Amino acid sequence: MIIASTAAAMDMEVSIFVTFWGFHALVKDRRRLPGQNWMQKMLSVMQRPGISHRKLSKMNFMGMGPWMMFQLAKKYNVSKPKDLLEMCQQLGVKIYPCQMTMDLFGLKKEDLIDGLEEPVGAATMLQLATEADSTLFI
Amino acid sequence: MIIASTAAAMDMEVSIFVTFWGFHALVKDRRRLPGQNWMQKMLSVMQRPGISHRKLSKMNFMGMGPWMMFQLAKKYNVSKPKDLLEMCQQLGVKIYPCQMTMDLFGLKKEDLIDGLEEPVGAATMLQLATEADSTLFI
Amino acid sequence: MIIASTAAAMDMEVSIFVTFWGFHALVKDRRRLPGQNWMQKMLSVMQRPGISHRKLSKMNFMGMGPWMMFQLAKKYNVSKPKDLLEMCQQLGVKIYPCQMTMDLFGLKKEDLIDGLEEPVGAATMLQLATEADSTLFI
Repeated sequence: MIIASTAAAMDMEVSIFVTFWGFHALVKDRRRLPGQNWMQKMLSVMQRPGISHRKLSKMNFMGMGPWMMFQLAKKYNVSKPKDLLEMCQQLGVKIYPCQMTMDLFGLKKEDLIDGLEEPVGAATMLQLATEADSTLFI
Repeated sequence: MIIASTAAAMDMEVSIFVTFWGFHALVKDRRRLPGQNWMQKMLSVMQRPGISHRKLSKMNFMGMGPWMMFQLAKKYNVSKPKDLLEMCQQLGVKIYPCQMTMDLFGLKKEDLIDGLEEPVGAATMLQLATEADSTLFI
Repeated sequence: MIIASTAAAMDMEVSIFVTFWGFHALVKDRRRLPGQNWMQKMLSVMQRPGISHRKLSKMNFMGMGPWMMFQLAKKYNVSKPKDLLEMCQQLGVKIYPCQMTMDLFGLKKEDLIDGLEEPVGAATMLQLATEADSTLFI
């Protein structure tokens, strides 16, 4: 989100294809668990929908890691993930949800946050990647 | 494998350089443990050779995560990793094993699945990367 | 480090932007813990500064994994991370520390190893990435 918003602020055209473990950042943060069968609901429990509930990729320590990061980020004026996502959308970053991930996790369009592009597959992602000046797989 | 097979189906030229933790997807799935000393054999035990034994990058839960994913994938017609790998090979994707990884893990060419390119090093990978329209480090 | 040093040996121009969890490879390996408050010092404890103290991304087993890797690497003449880093610097690889990471972790320039470029942000990284023939996000 930091890289995407910086790029957009530099007047670059930015597209993000969001798939698999990163996908729940695009799911609305609300009480009802998305998913259409018990396996999908269980995966939703494990991943707790919403960008504010993403964990750190390392050093979670039962939530203490993200909390410390949040404190430090606040102190040094680094934006929260949620604010960065909104900033990206305001700056015109196009965010594409991965159709196959939605199928696997049993997510519908109404489960996702507003302002996203239509869900696409690997073919569209590849087209974007080959036309781009730079592509980062994060 | 999904991205590679999609790209090949779109008539793109695709090369995959397989290294380190991803490498055991190229090792034949059979009883004998590859490796030439106890450390290499121990690393083989930990990584259980064969693409059908790859774990999820998150949420393994003692095998329950991959099992659920497998069920959901079957339900939504997403191919298994093994089938995707074979599809890639049929579509002409070139798969390059990393020579240094083979040395470190004590793997010989006869330990690997058929139809791969000759093992290469970082120099060949870099040449492929700089000539490509797009390179993903996954 | 292997890819960067190989590329530099092939006369390519190489820049590395080092950020977040990878950052402590650039911190001097010495007794005093960097960081300006308890949270930053605690993050330093968790990440033990210095490239020789980096862990494997998988299979650490309380240090046994890295030790085995080190033994195997020595046997097969694969250089240690510390040597690879020095080789990169001698071959002219430009290493850019991420300014925001330094702020968050409370690191000052004197905490870092010698021979680095000036700290930069995402904008400079993006400029390097879009001008490059190939960019890997590792």
